[in-house]
Amino acid sequence: MAGRGQWTRESLVDGVRSGDRRALARAITLVENADPLAYELVRDLYPTTGQAYAIGVTGPPGVGKSSLIAALLAHVRALGPTAGVISIDPSSPFSQGALLGDRIRLADHFLDPGVFIRSMGTRGHLGGLAEAALQALLLLDAAGKDLVFVETVGTGQSEVEVVGVADTVLLVLMPGSGDSIQALKAGIMEIPDVIAINKMDHPAAKTMLNEVRQVLGLDHDRVWKPPIVLTESVRGENIPELWEKLVQHRAHLERDGLLEERRRRHLAGEVFAVASSRAKQHLERAVHDDPELRRLLDAVQRRELDPLTAVKEIMEKVFKVGEGDGSRPH
Amino acid sequence: MAGRGQWTRESLVDGVRSGDRRALARAITLVENADPLAYELVRDLYPTTGQAYAIGVTGPPGVGKSSLIAALLAHVRALGPTAGVISIDPSSPFSQGALLGDRIRLADHFLDPGVFIRSMGTRGHLGGLAEAALQALLLLDAAGKDLVFVETVGTGQSEVEVVGVADTVLLVLMPGSGDSIQALKAGIMEIPDVIAINKMDHPAAKTMLNEVRQVLGLDHDRVWKPPIVLTESVRGENIPELWEKLVQHRAHLERDGLLEERRRRHLAGEVFAVASSRAKQHLERAVHDDPELRRLLDAVQRRELDPLTAVKEIMEKVFKVGEGDGSRPH
Repeated sequence: MAGRGQWTRESLVDGVRSGDRRALARAITLVENADPLAYELVRDLYPTTGQAYAIGVTGPPGVGKSSLIAALLAHVRALGPTAGVISIDPSSPFSQGALLGDRIRLADHFLDPGVFIRSMGTRGHLGGLAEAALQALLLLDAAGKDLVFVETVGTGQSEVEVVGVADTVLLVLMPGSGDSIQALKAGIMEIPDVIAINKMDHPAAKTMLNEVRQVLGLDHDRVWKPPIVLTESVRGENIPELWEKLVQHRAHLERDGLLEERRRRHLAGEVFAVASSRAKQHLERAVHDDPELRRLLDAVQRRELDPLTAVKEIMEKVFKVGEGDGSRPH
Repeated sequence: MAGRGQWTRESLVDGVRSGDRRALARAITLVENADPLAYELVRDLYPTTGQAYAIGVTGPPGVGKSSLIAALLAHVRALGPTAGVISIDPSSPFSQGALLGDRIRLADHFLDPGVFIRSMGTRGHLGGLAEAALQALLLLDAAGKDLVFVETVGTGQSEVEVVGVADTVLLVLMPGSGDSIQALKAGIMEIPDVIAINKMDHPAAKTMLNEVRQVLGLDHDRVWKPPIVLTESVRGENIPELWEKLVQHRAHLERDGLLEERRRRHLAGEVFAVASSRAKQHLERAVHDDPELRRLLDAVQRRELDPLTAVKEIMEKVFKVGEGDGSRPH
């Protein structure tokens, strides 16, 4: 083991492979900072990844995603598997300092060598959330974690990029999550694999359960019918049942050869998402650094140059993408 | 006026300028189809735009955004101004065929020559929602509409690109919109300029009002305190009050010189959003069309090539963006 600041690429690769917590912590910090060494680490470790099972945990802020993960960890660890948690939810107690119930549950796990928990900031990360989440997941995978929970806030479409790394997507709702129900109903939010309705003691929990059932019932064509579990994460109620549903979904994917297909699709999607993020950031930097491109924006603002002509000129200058690559057919 | 299929660039420009409905309809269809002619039209018309006031109407599906716009139109038209509506919400009754109440209200407006209503599909549009919304807005602006409502579904961040064309953003919620309240509270949803809580007859409307007040009260630093109006759009209740708040926000922006600044920022944001969308679509097409790039994805899926190296190779090949432009500092 190396001390702070003494990590080399080799010692980090070895450290992550052996599941060393400090190596993992350092590696994920490198990911957060978009350090070139993070890229090299992931490249070195990639061939041995693909062993961890990734569970994406999404849902609106405040529904108890973090405490549900904490409760699932307690249950899962008693069964044996090791686990990692990556929280990319800016509103998560994992990230911000937890409320009493969460703090107690989380504290247990922070002391458990079989669990690695990490919140991630990605402000200004060139490849965006998608890249940071993917790299962190691959590191935890390489570190031999059997399970990785990826927590993201999601109330619509924007979490998709991050959920795109998950084998199984768990959507967490609570009584009062009317907007999410409407979004599911309108087809704007993708149907998840498993749904937990947390805070089951709330008088409106049963109403929410019926609403979710009704929405899911509209879709007769799905082979996998997303199960719905009422949970109370602080007291750990129905956590074994929820875990069982997650296990069943995994078994369904593995039995029908769908896991491999889903992972293929997701990896391709991640490559696109990361490349798109990079293209966007590259664009913003280029315009920021180039007075000529900034002048284009000024002309747009004076209504002397229309916005789409400005876009064309920027695309040509920054990406060497000209006519015939743009809106016109080849 | 020209018949179907007989439009030329000149006749379309003239037709849009004079507010001819068929010319507008044809022009927006060209926008939807990403036809090069749409680009030329907007370029020709751009110098005379900037006269319309754009109100973005956002919120989760099912809260009654469309019927609220219909009610606002009835109120506004009686006062004189002409108006356009662009609906980019796949769950909107403007797009899909309205329920009884909406249908009656909408039918009135379809017959009013001072109102132009259009829903837009943007599937496969190279520049995405941002580009289509911007072009449609500019066309309605050039057609002399005093007001343009841009309706988009929004439960989180993803609607931002479209709302980015709006001078004033109206967020519509309803009793049960708990997820949106949480998203506002967590700072994940941007604070709008005006909030309507629709379906005010619902017993939980007052509770929702208090929750929204509480969330907004946390932010003491804002000069403009977003007003909250309880509405009932089907019966038209409190619609004049809501309109008054929208007018007040506009006056606030104009009085303090903020409108010009906001429009400058928005136009720059739109140029970036459109360019990013184009870059993404260009990327996807390039990978789709190029067997060598597809082989990169296959290698990633076989875990022979790590995803970020694949991203780098794709960026180099597609955008000629190499080392030094990527994650490494210059």
